[in-house]
Amino acid sequence: MKKLNVGIAGLGRIGKIHLANLMNTSQVNVVAAMDPMEDCLQHAKDLQINFTTISFEELINHVEVDTVVICSPTNTHADYVEMAAKAGKNIFCEKPLDLSLERVVEVLKVVKQSGTKLMLGFNRRFDPEFKKVRDLVKEGNVGDPHLVKITSRDPGAPPVSYIKTSGGLFLDMTIHDFDMARFIVGKEIAEVFAKGAVLIDRAIGDAGDIDTAVVLLTYGDGTMAVIDNSREAAYGYDQRLEVFGSKGMVQAENRFNDSHRVYNRQGVHSSLPLHFFLERYEAAYRNEMNEFISCVLSGEPLPVDGEDGLQSLVIGLAAIRSLKENRPVKISEISY
Amino acid sequence: MKKLNVGIAGLGRIGKIHLANLMNTSQVNVVAAMDPMEDCLQHAKDLQINFTTISFEELINHVEVDTVVICSPTNTHADYVEMAAKAGKNIFCEKPLDLSLERVVEVLKVVKQSGTKLMLGFNRRFDPEFKKVRDLVKEGNVGDPHLVKITSRDPGAPPVSYIKTSGGLFLDMTIHDFDMARFIVGKEIAEVFAKGAVLIDRAIGDAGDIDTAVVLLTYGDGTMAVIDNSREAAYGYDQRLEVFGSKGMVQAENRFNDSHRVYNRQGVHSSLPLHFFLERYEAAYRNEMNEFISCVLSGEPLPVDGEDGLQSLVIGLAAIRSLKENRPVKISEISY
Amino acid sequence: MKKLNVGIAGLGRIGKIHLANLMNTSQVNVVAAMDPMEDCLQHAKDLQINFTTISFEELINHVEVDTVVICSPTNTHADYVEMAAKAGKNIFCEKPLDLSLERVVEVLKVVKQSGTKLMLGFNRRFDPEFKKVRDLVKEGNVGDPHLVKITSRDPGAPPVSYIKTSGGLFLDMTIHDFDMARFIVGKEIAEVFAKGAVLIDRAIGDAGDIDTAVVLLTYGDGTMAVIDNSREAAYGYDQRLEVFGSKGMVQAENRFNDSHRVYNRQGVHSSLPLHFFLERYEAAYRNEMNEFISCVLSGEPLPVDGEDGLQSLVIGLAAIRSLKENRPVKISEISY
Amino acid sequence: MKKLNVGIAGLGRIGKIHLANLMNTSQVNVVAAMDPMEDCLQHAKDLQINFTTISFEELINHVEVDTVVICSPTNTHADYVEMAAKAGKNIFCEKPLDLSLERVVEVLKVVKQSGTKLMLGFNRRFDPEFKKVRDLVKEGNVGDPHLVKITSRDPGAPPVSYIKTSGGLFLDMTIHDFDMARFIVGKEIAEVFAKGAVLIDRAIGDAGDIDTAVVLLTYGDGTMAVIDNSREAAYGYDQRLEVFGSKGMVQAENRFNDSHRVYNRQGVHSSLPLHFFLERYEAAYRNEMNEFISCVLSGEPLPVDGEDGLQSLVIGLAAIRSLKENRPVKISEISY
Repeated sequence: MKKLNVGIAGLGRIGKIHLANLMNTSQVNVVAAMDPMEDCLQHAKDLQINFTTISFEELINHVEVDTVVICSPTNTHADYVEMAAKAGKNIFCEKPLDLSLERVVEVLKVVKQSGTKLMLGFNRRFDPEFKKVRDLVKEGNVGDPHLVKITSRDPGAPPVSYIKTSGGLFLDMTIHDFDMARFIVGKEIAEVFAKGAVLIDRAIGDAGDIDTAVVLLTYGDGTMAVIDNSREAAYGYDQRLEVFGSKGMVQAENRFNDSHRVYNRQGVHSSLPLHFFLERYEAAYRNEMNEFISCVLSGEPLPVDGEDGLQSLVIGLAAIRSLKENRPVKISEISY
Repeated sequence: MKKLNVGIAGLGRIGKIHLANLMNTSQVNVVAAMDPMEDCLQHAKDLQINFTTISFEELINHVEVDTVVICSPTNTHADYVEMAAKAGKNIFCEKPLDLSLERVVEVLKVVKQSGTKLMLGFNRRFDPEFKKVRDLVKEGNVGDPHLVKITSRDPGAPPVSYIKTSGGLFLDMTIHDFDMARFIVGKEIAEVFAKGAVLIDRAIGDAGDIDTAVVLLTYGDGTMAVIDNSREAAYGYDQRLEVFGSKGMVQAENRFNDSHRVYNRQGVHSSLPLHFFLERYEAAYRNEMNEFISCVLSGEPLPVDGEDGLQSLVIGLAAIRSLKENRPVKISEISY
Repeated sequence: MKKLNVGIAGLGRIGKIHLANLMNTSQVNVVAAMDPMEDCLQHAKDLQINFTTISFEELINHVEVDTVVICSPTNTHADYVEMAAKAGKNIFCEKPLDLSLERVVEVLKVVKQSGTKLMLGFNRRFDPEFKKVRDLVKEGNVGDPHLVKITSRDPGAPPVSYIKTSGGLFLDMTIHDFDMARFIVGKEIAEVFAKGAVLIDRAIGDAGDIDTAVVLLTYGDGTMAVIDNSREAAYGYDQRLEVFGSKGMVQAENRFNDSHRVYNRQGVHSSLPLHFFLERYEAAYRNEMNEFISCVLSGEPLPVDGEDGLQSLVIGLAAIRSLKENRPVKISEISY
Repeated sequence: MKKLNVGIAGLGRIGKIHLANLMNTSQVNVVAAMDPMEDCLQHAKDLQINFTTISFEELINHVEVDTVVICSPTNTHADYVEMAAKAGKNIFCEKPLDLSLERVVEVLKVVKQSGTKLMLGFNRRFDPEFKKVRDLVKEGNVGDPHLVKITSRDPGAPPVSYIKTSGGLFLDMTIHDFDMARFIVGKEIAEVFAKGAVLIDRAIGDAGDIDTAVVLLTYGDGTMAVIDNSREAAYGYDQRLEVFGSKGMVQAENRFNDSHRVYNRQGVHSSLPLHFFLERYEAAYRNEMNEFISCVLSGEPLPVDGEDGLQSLVIGLAAIRSLKENRPVKISEISY
């Protein structure tokens, strides 16, 4: 059996998830791990990964590594992808490639020239709930899509320090929803109107960001999508999807901790949604990595590529401009 | 027991509903009915209403009538309300008062001068589902509202001939949702951005209207509301509501024909939502008329007044301008 | 239009409901009312019923009355039905006909000889939820039925004084479920095993009754039904139904006060089921009376007849014997 | 960190699941595997288990093995547990210990004398849905339990050859529900009444078994439980639970493939329950093994022991007798 020899870069929260999924797959040998932190490297050693390093260069120069999984901080993505591409490795990289459109275009050019494969980690496409909706839409169950509705709310805001470097709500959070809007109906966005407010935490506003937003996307054919975001849903992670079309509607609900119902004098009570992305998207992360591995091995096209990363960034930048200028912004205004 | 002596004008579909609800109330005598059509008047005679006429003037001049319920065509509302006000009658009038802002302002001035009571038929405020949401929001169950979501889709488009005189989707259909947006959180709208498309029937576009729309409303304090509309939901009437705030979320689902579930090899199957407004808002129409009657009798303020009709119209006109100019329109731009 | 001229006997809680439904139907004139209580008769007078009396004999001798609706106390049913049958009236009688099997058989003989029509008030057959299940089963949606499950719990126990004369849980409460078990699959019961306990209120046990029960019914072909009962469900009236068969399953859920959901830090919260039979079976009572009226007018067979009352009583008596002797009791052991 | 050195016996369907869960736990070394089939042993070798054998004796004599996980065929359980107990190993054994009451009693005596730990694989106790119900009941959320309802239906009948040696429906299928009835309210059963029929496949009847059953259990204090079983639910695996008590009710629903809903002209359609026990109880198997491991390591009492296996078997035998003799059977009639 052909196997991939993987080197993983970055062993933080997401890195550990990807590593566990890689270790559970018989088609992969994880041969090397890179992280600047000693305790993260220790985690890799405990899992019998023989080669550990603090240098990404050493990782990609490891003689056995043919595939790189990049889960390091966002500001390293572009450089690492470039280096890995030049070294001819297959690449899985967490989103986003970069917050600078110019840099993303540059990196994608390098990837293209190198002829290597690059997949970006838009994990939600691999969530069984959303994938089911995508399949049903593709099979024509709702007819022609007319309206897409995406609810995406986090259980709590990240630290303001994070927000200062993340690119803000549209680039660190809504970007997933922009990708979902393109994915779920398989069409490109033409125009963006974004509205936002600081309703949760004034410190977020002081940092130049918003914490609550509604974004109205128009596809090229007039179909519309609405995204609503909040940094803080008291009841936890809220991830719902609805596609309405000429023949009907398909919805995906949140996934809940369990199905129990308590009936008492006060009412009927049930469990909250799964708390956050680690719980909700556990299967999505697993499926995503499995698809990456099997596509690289089989030579099939990767399900999410650099172009997908680029498009989401462009929509995000259009949203930022729309919010700032309080007007709808055409995607074509964001030139690159 | 003090009773209202009601004269009803217009015995079409809605008129018959209001009449039935009036006849079922012990606090009301329906003493007179007016309609230009003989068979509609016959309906009134069958219900032992003694005085029937084709003239609104005769109706309000009937010696016993102290209260008028107006369910005649939209283009008669303004004149009839004016006449009834001048005659000192209590007035219930179906929405809208008029499609012309100037005319509405004029009529409301007359009503004010006359000192009579005027209630407008925004029936959805009296729907038990939505009223429950309103009560829960009012009691603080969601904390400060941040996001309102209103889904409002009809089971099928009206004839194009109707659309030509109705004022279009924003004034004949979304106007209910504009009122709901104000009602559900008890705050005024400051800005409107509307996006629409012709995705269902080209003939609607040829008539100068749209059949699918998303409207983003911003309240004065930054809270946002999103309305999504379609003239034709294959599965029937879709009327849902969600209010999200600092402490949580409250939702109202559609009401369904029944609760049955069939489980078979193909999946789990259940009933569709109640088909259209007559079924869905049956209780709302009843509650609405009861509240009108009891407020008039008790002297309490009416729950929906002329100002509510005016505000919804203003939002509708802002939406029309927004759609046409593809930009957010401030409510203050619509002067009157 | 042919109309029924109805005399109604008994204007308690159920009587008032039937009266209101009768008054709302254009196919009926309510010409006379009988009740021993003056204030109940006043209620009839307020509704412009001209002839009121405290004598059932006078009611049925009223020259115009062709149809009698009997909602008087249980211990009068048998006598009244007999008198009305002998007088040649169409009869609607609340269940049960009588708690004595011999008396029921006797009365049914009189009804048969008189050739009049008798319908018994098993209202739940006319509940839209249960009727839907019956229709789906009849149309073959679950294939051959294998298992029926009926949950039937009251929100609170009746006074012990009532229990002492009601015949006990199996005859005053489960009797509805016995009828449902026969109705829902259209087959006769062959054997009964009943188990009961006093778990709620010792006073009920002291009165010789139980407050919690499970009854296992076996149909002639081996199909099984399980009924579970409680006199006191803290969360209100619990009325659910499930039919499982060779091709699948159909369920009817409770009906709830409204569909709202509140999501907050503690969980997801929603409304309780409709509190008791007046709310839950409002439509059932209306449909039941309408079917009675239209069947009498059209000459079609009545949907629930004396035989249905007899069979439910027989099952109830078998349940009582089963509980007492702690053994399955064949229906054929209950001779009449 | 202290670790268990596990030898696993039997690498069929369930054995492979337990093995995978054992391999995913850092507290365990799987040092040896036993199975009579070469390809099953190859599976173990592929997972780098160094010692493989076809002899259970060799397995328990392996110098490193301190813990045995027994997933071999039912008819080997008693002998293997006895051998492992005599060899002083910690034992996890799939249910049932044996179909003979005498043999079970014998084996448990040996286990007791040996002082080793024995846990039986009643996996459903570790299902997050049912565990949640158990916890809620324990915490008093339903008050005193009055009624327990267990629905347990398989998606399809096993081969008749299996049924001939399995002990029949009550011992191979309902036995899980008997254990659940004891577990969910923490009380012992006093009496059993079982009713069954052959409604699915005559061949099952010819083999002396039934395919559809209802069992009514009475606890010592009068609380009742009802179990309904079918060998073939067209819509898949149906595993539901309800506990009703003085303060309310708690329910656990099936778990479904996903949460999607399709709305179209025909109705609302959603996914089926997870197809069978491997999917439904995936988490249960994982949690079960983790609890076994952590209890053995910590010295805490095991959550399911030999006594639990014995009690379920006794209830099963009472059910068989009840079915045969068509009468309620006291648990005390089953002597051992």
